[in-house]
Amino acid sequence: MEERNRKKILDILRVLHESERPMGGTRIAQALNLAGREMSQRTIRYYLESTDQEGLTEPVGRRGRRLTTKGLQELNNASALEKVGFVSARVDALTYRMRFKLRQATGGVVVNLSGVEASRISEAATIMQRVYDAGLSMGQRLLVARPGSRVGRWRVNDDECAVATICSVSVNGVLLSQGIPTSNIFGGLLEMNDHRPTRFTEIIKYEGTSLDPLEIFIKSRMTSVYRAARTGDGLVGASFREIPAPAAEQARLLSARMQKIGIGGIVLVGRPGQPLLGVPVPTDRVGLVVIGGLNPLAAVEEAGISTTNHAMGALMPFQALHPFQEILNKFRK
Amino acid sequence: MEERNRKKILDILRVLHESERPMGGTRIAQALNLAGREMSQRTIRYYLESTDQEGLTEPVGRRGRRLTTKGLQELNNASALEKVGFVSARVDALTYRMRFKLRQATGGVVVNLSGVEASRISEAATIMQRVYDAGLSMGQRLLVARPGSRVGRWRVNDDECAVATICSVSVNGVLLSQGIPTSNIFGGLLEMNDHRPTRFTEIIKYEGTSLDPLEIFIKSRMTSVYRAARTGDGLVGASFREIPAPAAEQARLLSARMQKIGIGGIVLVGRPGQPLLGVPVPTDRVGLVVIGGLNPLAAVEEAGISTTNHAMGALMPFQALHPFQEILNKFRK
Repeated sequence: MEERNRKKILDILRVLHESERPMGGTRIAQALNLAGREMSQRTIRYYLESTDQEGLTEPVGRRGRRLTTKGLQELNNASALEKVGFVSARVDALTYRMRFKLRQATGGVVVNLSGVEASRISEAATIMQRVYDAGLSMGQRLLVARPGSRVGRWRVNDDECAVATICSVSVNGVLLSQGIPTSNIFGGLLEMNDHRPTRFTEIIKYEGTSLDPLEIFIKSRMTSVYRAARTGDGLVGASFREIPAPAAEQARLLSARMQKIGIGGIVLVGRPGQPLLGVPVPTDRVGLVVIGGLNPLAAVEEAGISTTNHAMGALMPFQALHPFQEILNKFRK
Repeated sequence: MEERNRKKILDILRVLHESERPMGGTRIAQALNLAGREMSQRTIRYYLESTDQEGLTEPVGRRGRRLTTKGLQELNNASALEKVGFVSARVDALTYRMRFKLRQATGGVVVNLSGVEASRISEAATIMQRVYDAGLSMGQRLLVARPGSRVGRWRVNDDECAVATICSVSVNGVLLSQGIPTSNIFGGLLEMNDHRPTRFTEIIKYEGTSLDPLEIFIKSRMTSVYRAARTGDGLVGASFREIPAPAAEQARLLSARMQKIGIGGIVLVGRPGQPLLGVPVPTDRVGLVVIGGLNPLAAVEEAGISTTNHAMGALMPFQALHPFQEILNKFRK
């Protein structure tokens, strides 16, 4: 794909990706115009012919196109610059689609999808249990699927177990369902001393990276979640967010309710305009520290058991997840 | 150290760290005032007593204090927030101190300090040679020191060899010596296709992180430098910088001269206000892509040989480094 056409093609692929149904040239043109990326229908048709040929799109029925798996890959491979801010954008999109009902404790939650070597799953289950016991996880529920089974649209590899943990982004979804918008500021390593959070030792701002900060901290083996779970001292994944100052009281109440139904995760709620763990916050805002959903997997990785992790991998019904004691006991020897 | 005193103590430690000689209360007060962090001499003396007691500072001669190793550690452990932008600041400080003489090819250069398992150094040397041969290194010179020897102020561990590679920040130093100031924008993974740079696949902006981006990419095993060296296709560490537009022509000439004396590293120089590899650049600026100095070590890490890497570890005389063929041949079997 030539560089000068590439941007336009990616714009078209993105529109198809965002749509739930196949789209024709007219609707694609409308969507692009609304997004301030005007393109004539003729130009769009020209590009669609070439994306069909390259296998990035395929015709469905009367003049509609949809994205192929290859097209999706092409989008995902889009240059890093196009992915900066992508993490925040993805958070917002998933948050909006969650539609979680707090009262009934039902509805979608955002989950992380991880793979763990099947041969070491019982060891991994013991480790994860410790992290859940110590309250360093996002909520109290998860799902573990055996090799070859299916988790949503994802088929689990034959040599690994799949683990779905609640993603901390679900906190944003619950807050939004109560009318509170959340801004994601950074992901970092949170130092725990004597079971209490003290400070962030490393941070990566969401707006300055094409990668999920917590995935990176796990991959580069910078966490010490297992030690934090066992002794109270260690470095765990966490993130810093902001909400409007008038929502602070409600957020505190919601935090308690979320804890109760097992979707927990808010570690600290600050005061209006006041620094939280030394992190400055604008006047009309309040800081939140939210625990990282991948912490149980970080502890597994620390033990030398290899994992693959995809933060914000999917939406899943909360009811499909079960209390950790129940699930993990089945996999422990 | 209590949180409310901590900031002030760190301010004092920082002033002592920046000074080349021990300082008394009066000079510390002056320095703090100039930095907009006014503190009375009485307050300073009060804190200095406690930092002496904690072993963070020590008295030298008549009422002067200097930082101890423990004090330096305390500074380095400062919370992540204090370290954001630290990478850029450290680059600028080292660049200023370089004083490299291009004509004579002498003077200080900024180096990365790495450790490599001593038992696998010959294997590592073979791998690094391939990376240097392929031109994916920063310049053509390095230093390898045997276990137990000294590299500058650093004593090499008994079970590892030390490797000093030219840090890409040295490019900034050479440009500055010719009156060209450089801004560091981001570190990233640069995709090489058929031996040519095509795009950045991941980026981390310097202003949004407390970590060196390239150290992180290596640690999390996201590079494929060895493959890029062997086949021409792969992901290598690189960074994106900007210089004033009128300096573009001179930068191109300097790039060629640097290449010639073995301090190379500028991969691409853009055009005024024009995107470079798809990265937009402000009107009066020109983009630069500079190769990552740690690429040879990334390739070693990719082979499963464990390394420790400190980007911008020290300043070292350029003459202390030698052509890679000469050095690496000694360590190959």
